[in-house]
Amino acid sequence: MAHVIEIDDPDDGRLADFRDLSTADRRPDRPGGRGLVIAEGVVVVRRLLASPYPVRGLLGVRRRIDALLPDLAGLDVPAYVTSAAVMAEVVGFHLNRGVLAAADRAPQPEVEALAAGARRLAVLEGVGDHENLGALFRNAAAFGIDGVLLGAGCADPLYRRSVRVSMGHVLRVPFGRFTAWPQELDVLRRHGFRVVALTPGRSAIPLAELTGGDERLALLFGSEGPGLSEAAIAAADVAARIPMTGDVDSLNVATAAAVAFYALTAPRLETAPGNPVRARSAR
Amino acid sequence: MAHVIEIDDPDDGRLADFRDLSTADRRPDRPGGRGLVIAEGVVVVRRLLASPYPVRGLLGVRRRIDALLPDLAGLDVPAYVTSAAVMAEVVGFHLNRGVLAAADRAPQPEVEALAAGARRLAVLEGVGDHENLGALFRNAAAFGIDGVLLGAGCADPLYRRSVRVSMGHVLRVPFGRFTAWPQELDVLRRHGFRVVALTPGRSAIPLAELTGGDERLALLFGSEGPGLSEAAIAAADVAARIPMTGDVDSLNVATAAAVAFYALTAPRLETAPGNPVRARSAR
Repeated sequence: MAHVIEIDDPDDGRLADFRDLSTADRRPDRPGGRGLVIAEGVVVVRRLLASPYPVRGLLGVRRRIDALLPDLAGLDVPAYVTSAAVMAEVVGFHLNRGVLAAADRAPQPEVEALAAGARRLAVLEGVGDHENLGALFRNAAAFGIDGVLLGAGCADPLYRRSVRVSMGHVLRVPFGRFTAWPQELDVLRRHGFRVVALTPGRSAIPLAELTGGDERLALLFGSEGPGLSEAAIAAADVAARIPMTGDVDSLNVATAAAVAFYALTAPRLETAPGNPVRARSAR
Repeated sequence: MAHVIEIDDPDDGRLADFRDLSTADRRPDRPGGRGLVIAEGVVVVRRLLASPYPVRGLLGVRRRIDALLPDLAGLDVPAYVTSAAVMAEVVGFHLNRGVLAAADRAPQPEVEALAAGARRLAVLEGVGDHENLGALFRNAAAFGIDGVLLGAGCADPLYRRSVRVSMGHVLRVPFGRFTAWPQELDVLRRHGFRVVALTPGRSAIPLAELTGGDERLALLFGSEGPGLSEAAIAAADVAARIPMTGDVDSLNVATAAAVAFYALTAPRLETAPGNPVRARSAR
């Protein structure tokens, strides 16, 4: 059972995990950052409680802590109750979701282990924007992607803003980091994955022609501006594109990923010699 | 030819169109708001210059104004050149895109006129978030949607933040507003549109079963939280859903729209009696 503890003093040392969350040096990926996982709001806190990350404590207004009490049964952590004003003073900004939880990090799975158990993977290169990263995890969860693998230049999915934008799905969708990029994509191939680079290049095949069905697929996405590096595209088995009209900018990376994930769930298309194209259900 | 005019004084009265852009009362949908269309950055300013909105003037640092000079040929407007510091003082925040343009509004097309010339329409209800709205227009442009129609409770697509997030595509994709909602959806039907409500409801058919091809389709999207109203769903011809896994929150509305727009561009599926499902190319 969580220990519900009322606190009135914003300087109370027990609130250290929640202090000054908006300052840059709290970012876990910066020197001096604490590296804690912070969840905001009842829904996301619930996902943190259900995650592998060891929860250290909660801070919230009475109503929000009460709403979470059933989820806290069997958990030996402090739940600090205070006013919205004291909360704002502690965290450094007004928090309209009314509750926070802090957790320690936990080791991420190795690429090898993630690949072994997965059928659909998203692989990212250069996705350095925390909000895009969070949105991508949310979309990955929505379409049943088994895991996300981070190549070079990706931000930290466990940074507070990523967690929030993902609606907590970064706490549920397993992710790992490549160490040798993009050479380590070979690990995926060894596990039977076809590695597909998403790129607007004209030589790329339309996404709908991707073989779906039971084939193991790893979809590579680059950052919004430059897209995938030449090296990453070269390291993939095939390049695929989302058909778009004329001169429009590429889609936001999380949006492009949602479209691609959807395309994999749609009925599989097999290009037959001559039309009509035949399709069968993916599952 | 634009008149390039150097200005050093942040209080210069000629910069009134660009003053204090971040304060709420500049919002065109609020009382006291000027209602100007503001474009930020070279790419979006170019889209404004190519739009039906009458440009009033530009403000930028020398390098950005120079980049735009070819686009300004034949346009009789002032282009004020100043320093980044003076710009920041005028607009009220640091603007790292270095150039702004202001335009007057222009009458939007009637629903009737928009429907008459379109094959694919997006119809929105309750999309009150400017960023979601902007992102949706960007996605509509990417997938060749012919127009966006706003039902009850939608924000102003021409608000500065919508314009920016849309990458300027709100200035290109035609939009109109329904006056009687949702009854006026009948206008679309009179023009041969099938009106499709996007909703996660269990009775909704999977999106992939939507008849594509040459049929005129209007896709209805609701806001992220509550979704479409009962009345809007009832006023549609059919309800369709994006297949998603288990207990995941619904997608962001702009993301859901991108997926739906993509689905319309993909090969048309015809559910045959018994499997396999047959498909033919949409175009």
